[in-house]
Amino acid sequence: MNSENAKKESPFLKRLEAVAADTEALLGRLLAAKPEKDELSRPGRLIDAMRYSSLGGGKRFRPFLVIESARLLKVPRQRALMAGAALECVHCYSLVHDDLPAMDNDALRRGQPTVHKKFDEATAILAGDGLLTFAFDILSRPRTHPDAAVRIELVHALARAAGVGGMAGGQMLDLAAEGRFTQSGPQRLGESKVAVLQAMKTGALLRFACQAGGILAGAGAAQRKALDRYGAAVGQAFQIADDLLDLEGDTALVGKQTGKDAAAGKATMVGALGEAGAKMRLTQLVAEAESALAPFGRAAAILIEGARFVAERHA
Amino acid sequence: MNSENAKKESPFLKRLEAVAADTEALLGRLLAAKPEKDELSRPGRLIDAMRYSSLGGGKRFRPFLVIESARLLKVPRQRALMAGAALECVHCYSLVHDDLPAMDNDALRRGQPTVHKKFDEATAILAGDGLLTFAFDILSRPRTHPDAAVRIELVHALARAAGVGGMAGGQMLDLAAEGRFTQSGPQRLGESKVAVLQAMKTGALLRFACQAGGILAGAGAAQRKALDRYGAAVGQAFQIADDLLDLEGDTALVGKQTGKDAAAGKATMVGALGEAGAKMRLTQLVAEAESALAPFGRAAAILIEGARFVAERHA
Repeated sequence: MNSENAKKESPFLKRLEAVAADTEALLGRLLAAKPEKDELSRPGRLIDAMRYSSLGGGKRFRPFLVIESARLLKVPRQRALMAGAALECVHCYSLVHDDLPAMDNDALRRGQPTVHKKFDEATAILAGDGLLTFAFDILSRPRTHPDAAVRIELVHALARAAGVGGMAGGQMLDLAAEGRFTQSGPQRLGESKVAVLQAMKTGALLRFACQAGGILAGAGAAQRKALDRYGAAVGQAFQIADDLLDLEGDTALVGKQTGKDAAAGKATMVGALGEAGAKMRLTQLVAEAESALAPFGRAAAILIEGARFVAERHA
Repeated sequence: MNSENAKKESPFLKRLEAVAADTEALLGRLLAAKPEKDELSRPGRLIDAMRYSSLGGGKRFRPFLVIESARLLKVPRQRALMAGAALECVHCYSLVHDDLPAMDNDALRRGQPTVHKKFDEATAILAGDGLLTFAFDILSRPRTHPDAAVRIELVHALARAAGVGGMAGGQMLDLAAEGRFTQSGPQRLGESKVAVLQAMKTGALLRFACQAGGILAGAGAAQRKALDRYGAAVGQAFQIADDLLDLEGDTALVGKQTGKDAAAGKATMVGALGEAGAKMRLTQLVAEAESALAPFGRAAAILIEGARFVAERHA
């Protein structure tokens, strides 16, 4: 085995790939063309667009965080996969709507035509709406957890993470920072404002992913707090790495157009701290993620490797 | 008191107005500008657009159905108002997205500029997303019901009513019937296909409204079935009345452009049955609604009047 293969066989990458395969299979079953017994119909074009935007791609890093934080607390894998699938539906809906002409106007996503390019704008709007709604459908099912109190806690946390005080709100702050709604052009946000924007726009869902493990396990306050600290650090690291990729990355590798943030005047931590400052922050965040999980000892090794992966990824 | 005033003082209209006032006040409080204690921020422009699209208008007929079906089963009003507010968020999100240029491209709604006209398209997309998400936030709160099992049942039923097998799916069928995705122009759908389309597009949310009363009350199968039969009849009546209004109504009264369905080649029951046939069906549906609630006796008088109101409304 050469060194490239050895790297591919890292325990972390094996776990990430296993989560991706299981998530793909589960979403494929959940988003079947055939209606559930209490549904009149699942219109073909809509379910096709929902499948197109949620199957066949993505690292499934959010489901990975759900499943591995749940595994740390001995939650059965099937339950964590359901919560991960719900979260992935929210993530995919946000990509479909963000790509729309009135939003970021992107033609490529994961190297493929975006949903409104492949289908049409109306179908893309409805596919996003359908995926967002479907996330709550998934969370409400007993397969996610037999205890209704656990399921409703997941619903509450996901609604908060995705809503006006979370991802949707962060997206609005991002458009405002671009200068969409004023004559004065892009705003140059300071570090603390960029931090709030990013904690909402990307951080909230990643943080939810880590909280979900604690919710599914009915964990105590200390364990929940540890996972939340880890999730917050990973969320920040994820976004900074994304901004660096946009600056330095290769369109072919990244699978979407790069260099767009700077062109659009997007508010990024690279803009606020400079490139070197952003890279230094990344290193600190990985250390913070590691320290947060110290109480779990060796069992948290995979999640810690996940934090490093996020910081060092090239695509 | 003259006869016009007497009509205004009907018990039904008084109840409808009371629900509208209470729903307005509750949504106003829930959609406060100030973030909840676990939210980082509620971006002003987004919350403004969410408030614009959900406050200050509408008959609040869906919340009325929730509250009156709940009252029939002795559910505390505050709980029913929460469920009604959640449902109204879903209804309002659907209007915002349906009005978008890529969808029905409407400039007027309730006599006011639509959200994308008043704000802009990106804000309208996010406001719709925010309202849809917020509905599940509301349902997940203990104020909606102290029992988590009841709350999760509401989440499940609303997700089904709004999703790919419900409202979003119905909207997709409607666009397809317009001939959006083919070269061959509008499809002329037969009665049964129009019935499925409308049961999903408008019927599902109205039906959920009536189911919600039974869920909140933890009612037995017979009562739930009665409310569901009533809800299905009212849902069909509502859509047929809407189609007749589009045909005959006055833009100033209806508060949105009329005559658009025929122009767009929309699939309607008026198209399938003819105008006289559609009016006859309306009468049958009111009788069906009445018969469904017969077991409740006099206590159901307001809901029965509600079904008549739906069938006879002029705006």
